[in-house]
Amino acid sequence: MGQSLTQKILASHLVSGDLEQGNEIALRIDQTLTQDATGTMAYLQFEAMNLSRVQTECSVSYIDHNTLQTGFENADDHAFLQSAAARFGAYFSRPGNGICHQVHLERFAKPGKTLLGSDSHTPTAGGMGMLAMGAGGLDVAVAMGGGPFYLPNPKVLRVWLNGQLSEWVSAKDIILEILRTLTVKGGVGKIIEYAGPGVKTLTVPERSTITNMGAELGASSSIFPSDEQTLRFLEAQGRAEDWVPLSADKDASYDEELRIDLSQLVPLVAQPHSPDNVVPVSDLATTPVQQVAIGSCTNSSYQDLMRVSQILKGKHVHPSVSLVISPGSRQVLTMLADNGALTNLLDSGARLLESTCGPCIGMGQSPVSKAVSVRTFNRNFKGRSGTQDASVFLASPEVASACALTGYITDPRTLGTSSNVDYPQQFRIDDSMILPPGDPDTPIQRGPNIQPLPLAPALDNTLDLPIILKLGDNVTTDDIMPAGSKILPLRSNIPAISEYTFHKIDPQFAAKAKDLKQSVIVAGHNYGQGSSREHAALAPMYLGLRVVLAQSFARIHRANLINFGILPLTFVNEEDLTRFESGMILHLSGLHQAIQTPGPFALTTDNDANPILVRHDLTERQAKILLAGGLLNSTKAAY
Amino acid sequence: MGQSLTQKILASHLVSGDLEQGNEIALRIDQTLTQDATGTMAYLQFEAMNLSRVQTECSVSYIDHNTLQTGFENADDHAFLQSAAARFGAYFSRPGNGICHQVHLERFAKPGKTLLGSDSHTPTAGGMGMLAMGAGGLDVAVAMGGGPFYLPNPKVLRVWLNGQLSEWVSAKDIILEILRTLTVKGGVGKIIEYAGPGVKTLTVPERSTITNMGAELGASSSIFPSDEQTLRFLEAQGRAEDWVPLSADKDASYDEELRIDLSQLVPLVAQPHSPDNVVPVSDLATTPVQQVAIGSCTNSSYQDLMRVSQILKGKHVHPSVSLVISPGSRQVLTMLADNGALTNLLDSGARLLESTCGPCIGMGQSPVSKAVSVRTFNRNFKGRSGTQDASVFLASPEVASACALTGYITDPRTLGTSSNVDYPQQFRIDDSMILPPGDPDTPIQRGPNIQPLPLAPALDNTLDLPIILKLGDNVTTDDIMPAGSKILPLRSNIPAISEYTFHKIDPQFAAKAKDLKQSVIVAGHNYGQGSSREHAALAPMYLGLRVVLAQSFARIHRANLINFGILPLTFVNEEDLTRFESGMILHLSGLHQAIQTPGPFALTTDNDANPILVRHDLTERQAKILLAGGLLNSTKAAY
Repeated sequence: MGQSLTQKILASHLVSGDLEQGNEIALRIDQTLTQDATGTMAYLQFEAMNLSRVQTECSVSYIDHNTLQTGFENADDHAFLQSAAARFGAYFSRPGNGICHQVHLERFAKPGKTLLGSDSHTPTAGGMGMLAMGAGGLDVAVAMGGGPFYLPNPKVLRVWLNGQLSEWVSAKDIILEILRTLTVKGGVGKIIEYAGPGVKTLTVPERSTITNMGAELGASSSIFPSDEQTLRFLEAQGRAEDWVPLSADKDASYDEELRIDLSQLVPLVAQPHSPDNVVPVSDLATTPVQQVAIGSCTNSSYQDLMRVSQILKGKHVHPSVSLVISPGSRQVLTMLADNGALTNLLDSGARLLESTCGPCIGMGQSPVSKAVSVRTFNRNFKGRSGTQDASVFLASPEVASACALTGYITDPRTLGTSSNVDYPQQFRIDDSMILPPGDPDTPIQRGPNIQPLPLAPALDNTLDLPIILKLGDNVTTDDIMPAGSKILPLRSNIPAISEYTFHKIDPQFAAKAKDLKQSVIVAGHNYGQGSSREHAALAPMYLGLRVVLAQSFARIHRANLINFGILPLTFVNEEDLTRFESGMILHLSGLHQAIQTPGPFALTTDNDANPILVRHDLTERQAKILLAGGLLNSTKAAY
Repeated sequence: MGQSLTQKILASHLVSGDLEQGNEIALRIDQTLTQDATGTMAYLQFEAMNLSRVQTECSVSYIDHNTLQTGFENADDHAFLQSAAARFGAYFSRPGNGICHQVHLERFAKPGKTLLGSDSHTPTAGGMGMLAMGAGGLDVAVAMGGGPFYLPNPKVLRVWLNGQLSEWVSAKDIILEILRTLTVKGGVGKIIEYAGPGVKTLTVPERSTITNMGAELGASSSIFPSDEQTLRFLEAQGRAEDWVPLSADKDASYDEELRIDLSQLVPLVAQPHSPDNVVPVSDLATTPVQQVAIGSCTNSSYQDLMRVSQILKGKHVHPSVSLVISPGSRQVLTMLADNGALTNLLDSGARLLESTCGPCIGMGQSPVSKAVSVRTFNRNFKGRSGTQDASVFLASPEVASACALTGYITDPRTLGTSSNVDYPQQFRIDDSMILPPGDPDTPIQRGPNIQPLPLAPALDNTLDLPIILKLGDNVTTDDIMPAGSKILPLRSNIPAISEYTFHKIDPQFAAKAKDLKQSVIVAGHNYGQGSSREHAALAPMYLGLRVVLAQSFARIHRANLINFGILPLTFVNEEDLTRFESGMILHLSGLHQAIQTPGPFALTTDNDANPILVRHDLTERQAKILLAGGLLNSTKAAY
């Protein structure tokens, strides 16, 4: 039987595990990327493992998240990352050079290769026929050091595209339609593979809009074939030699399939506060709009912004609307300046921002109170814009441009006829803001915002742990470690950022945890849902959290807990949760043997002598990590 | 005897007072400008005085300070200001349209007219032959309402310019040389009037760099004649009809004179942490530089940035330097995009920021810890960059560009020959981001960041005030009320912003002041130097500050103190300062009569029965304001 595109890349990169069976597999990683909000930690971890030089084909350190620099912290991080990239052998994309996923697509992504990135939108490069996955910074650090990446063997869901998009309908509408159908949980445990005759009608940047937002489906990755469109894009980037053709075998089988007729799609919009809350734009016409934001790793390509320029040319932004545009890269921005499109945008009244993530991660451009903000971005979670009571709608550049002109949510098909925009035969290539790997003797620059990485202690055989918090269901990583413009700059400073741990739930948490020295959290279902941020494990670990006992865990957060030496336990009988209260002491003994033995084991509390059965469900590899005090310690020991 | 240029404009705008004698005069104000950091307060004050429509020839509300929008506060302010401008009859320059002083020069400034602006760099328009002065927002609000502006009858200092600048020496070096000579106190109580054969060699934007930084001399204003250069600039802005010729009479006399031979000047730099700490650039060669910032109301004109583009073209920023450029206006940015200069800048590795004040006011781009940052700005006070231990150097665009290329402080004359840059016959004119005055029925938009204005109590006849702080010379408005990205967004919310009063000097100040309920500050010379921010008076007033006793005051801050009901007193014998310490109690009695009587009066302290003579130097008008509890109360009473 034939192989899917996914299976071909998995097979060619398999280090251990079995693709036919479920369970964990390990993959060789060809390329890595980091950005500055996660990269400082990844490089501190790389350093803490006593690694000296990256072992991948190519690792790139990007600065795109924290570029407002409202204090010394961001610049300290940039200087650290620049020196670390030079020393450890990575490329360094300087601030202003662009958003990691856009620049990676332009200058580094290669069909058939694997990419691991410490950013959840790393699958953007799947538009190039690359198997690209997001992971925690520590996993990326291990991959930079040449170690494999472990993941549950994924299912493959084929999306079969028929037909061709109508006027004013674009790639964003395809992924919004898929989100509408599959929901934000529809991709969990899966890789989404695109196929069918509609594929060839989509350019690489369009495909990348789709693979980018595959992250919102919860998918491990999304991937398109490598075909003539891929070659054409690589040729225009002066990288034809990086092309290989790649597609699924005709007789490949898939775990699931979804079919979409592109010609039936209409302009869509995701309503607050979830990317899968999708309706036709026309359903919302007459909703007044206060802000339109165009950019982000989802929709800031040359093609996207030329389309915007074409729509806005000779017209003017509505006086009630603030229109902000962040080009995806310096390549995009310079080309727009050169061909007059930038002038069209400025003439229309657009505000031009740096080529960074910016408003997409709440890093500036928070809209007015109670605003309706239409954004070409990928996420519209409540409060992510920085304005707690704003309503963020996700849409294509075409829809966003139409809204900017009229001042209300507008179906772009009401604007008249439209003409296609393509990219030129040759992009403007200038890699002068990408510094190549430097001298291994480059000293690391460590400003006051760069603090040493705390390591977890090896797991004790016996633990007496006070319950510091008892929580309910669906505790998010935002509850554990908030993000936002005030806290993100502290990502390389665990002592400082740890002060914000559980800050929204209990402002005294950090102080209390330090007093207790060691502690345990008890919680309900789906503990740690949300983002992949490893700070939600690292900061509690720093504050002495040793065990989380929950009814169930979100997958990535559970992996992060293990990586940082915190033991995740579940109940054998879920209702036992009611037997625990804040302040009780948990007694665990014989832990070393217990976590190396499958099946349940017992613990007691200080006011209940009856043993309570719990389970760890650790693989042998994970048990070893915990015994060593986390992945960092265990990897360090292995080198 | 003939009149100086200054006297001519004063005479044609005199409402009351006597130009021959010292003392206070009142002027009719033709134009006003506000920016968003001070404008919210000015429009709240305009509203609090029950005024309905601006009475000036032209009032413009600019958004240029708080544009990062890291929370809802900035956008709330923008929406408030946009609605207030429409309702009250002002022009509204939207975010992204540019820095107030640059845009005002381009589109509104007129020779022979008076301009009052709630920004200390309002004298920038003096480059146009306009009498342009900075003032607190409340004074501007009164002027918008048609009231006169009161100021001490200024002395006039003539700066006589001979010769012509050498290659690589520019307007910035002229004002740095004047700062070196006169120091930051040299302009106090004066208007600086430029004359001599060197004047005609300077374009309007160059003149405006000089008048802009006259603020750093402490001058009330700076002014150039209106001549052929002025006409040429206005013609290029499509505003030839706004031109009138204007210059001093040949036989005019001046209070002071300074002579400068332009041909003798060399590239200069102001060292940390004062704009008058000036040395030749060549003295500092080999100092490594981590950041170069080009822009601000001082040096962001078309001519400035074309010069930078010319220097950087085909070269590349040093890998250790972060170069950020903020064009002064959308006009400048669009022209650079159109003629290819922007591409040169981007190619060289510059990061492009919005056309706003940005890093000049610590609104982003804080440099790395312990950085050397070379900036084309006007102020280098410690910590203003947002990085407390950074060293900021002020220099011309030419010097800044040279530093960006080499990575150390560099005399641009080492770069070889240079060619002149002029502006074109016709600027690119597009006022579509300047909204004209709107409907008087426009409703005011008042988001949660717009808080009601606190009013001062009427002055008590007897006060027993604890000395909450004793301070030295040159206390800046930055010391009193820091700016920066965390605090500026609170400018329309006095209860919130008052928590930061004297925060850098004593983090407990606000709490202490609230405990004491009423207090006095004792200080050395030049108290309140720096910006015109009235929050440096308003917030202390809100916290109970009733009197400041200093050796001398900066003019604008003294006026702000009076406007907000705080009594400014000076010593009859300066050395009496040594008799005061923090914590002592000042006894003041018979205040009502004392402040209405010219001449000294006595106060005592709790541990020194000997009376100490102080003076108030209040005019009759000012005494009335203080008795009423500030200008808002007294003006309100008058309407």
